[in-house]
Amino acid sequence: MNEFSSKLLESAVNQLSRLPGIGKKTALRLALHIIREDEDFANGLGTSLMKMKEEIVFCDKCHNISDAALCEICSNPKRDENTLCVVEDVRDVMAIENTAQFNGLYHVLGGIINPIEGIGPNDLFIRELVERINREEIREIILALPATVEGDTTNFYIYKLVQHFEIKMTTIARGVAIGDELEYTDEITLGRSILNRTPFEQIMKR
Amino acid sequence: MNEFSSKLLESAVNQLSRLPGIGKKTALRLALHIIREDEDFANGLGTSLMKMKEEIVFCDKCHNISDAALCEICSNPKRDENTLCVVEDVRDVMAIENTAQFNGLYHVLGGIINPIEGIGPNDLFIRELVERINREEIREIILALPATVEGDTTNFYIYKLVQHFEIKMTTIARGVAIGDELEYTDEITLGRSILNRTPFEQIMKR
Repeated sequence: MNEFSSKLLESAVNQLSRLPGIGKKTALRLALHIIREDEDFANGLGTSLMKMKEEIVFCDKCHNISDAALCEICSNPKRDENTLCVVEDVRDVMAIENTAQFNGLYHVLGGIINPIEGIGPNDLFIRELVERINREEIREIILALPATVEGDTTNFYIYKLVQHFEIKMTTIARGVAIGDELEYTDEITLGRSILNRTPFEQIMKR
Repeated sequence: MNEFSSKLLESAVNQLSRLPGIGKKTALRLALHIIREDEDFANGLGTSLMKMKEEIVFCDKCHNISDAALCEICSNPKRDENTLCVVEDVRDVMAIENTAQFNGLYHVLGGIINPIEGIGPNDLFIRELVERINREEIREIILALPATVEGDTTNFYIYKLVQHFEIKMTTIARGVAIGDELEYTDEITLGRSILNRTPFEQIMKR
């Protein structure tokens, strides 16, 4: 006996539940929603997923997700070509773009060094980063990797590779998040925020 | 500036986030997962959703989801045609089928009476239920609606319509859920479970 009473529904639920974080119950709820909506909804969703997978590429230069060989950021003449922000993946590009505080270019590593998961430097676009430094006129590299042991390891690895170039290397500030109370901030973050304290005039200028 | 750096990704995220319970962040996570998987994954998912929406129908008899005019349950000669289980929607059919404790047929109302949301008897397949009672040889109707005010209202409405037929009407038992401690069971449920106590011999027989 087929619990679904419809092989079409069963197939859709099975496909949906292969998505991360989507269990059978959620998949069923989504499938029933699609059945209740008009045909345009299912067609729009289905074709847009297939078209995306078929046509999307990674930018030749920064390895960000792109519709063309060169992504919109890399091909934008208004961006500052001399500043490179190194990030773990494409989601970080979007997160930083959303802040509207950065006008340089990106370099997506495609992950960070993680010996436990078996991810080494050769699995990432680190060699490509060094090639860009050789080829392009880069004056500053901002390391915007996660504030974890793996992030720090990757930062250090890149630093060692890049230190002989005449390039300014920075990491994004670690400190107390805006809106946070000091008493609820963990000691390491609070300690770092004292060590890396910012001159007050610098804040006044913003 | 397009935060997504890819219109294909943006379109997929927008489509995914129209699904219930899927926000922009989740939609992005799903889309990036689809990009990382091979092409078969996106094609399988996309086509199965579109095919489901295009081809799925509702059973002429019980209004359950179906691949044909008559669903697998209604067209199964081994099912007991004399017992009808009335449920709110197709998910309840699946839930009851999963228990493997019911071998009769179903009648899906497509909702329950809910004056606040403007759902009246005419919005539901209640008239069709009475027609089935007139036409088919039904001996027992099991009302398996939610244990809420709306469920009880719908139960009562159906009872009033059906009482002049010579049909046994029952509702599913309300009581203490299996595994629950009495001290954490709400008073109304506990009170009902005493009023509707079950002869012990009946339990011994199972």
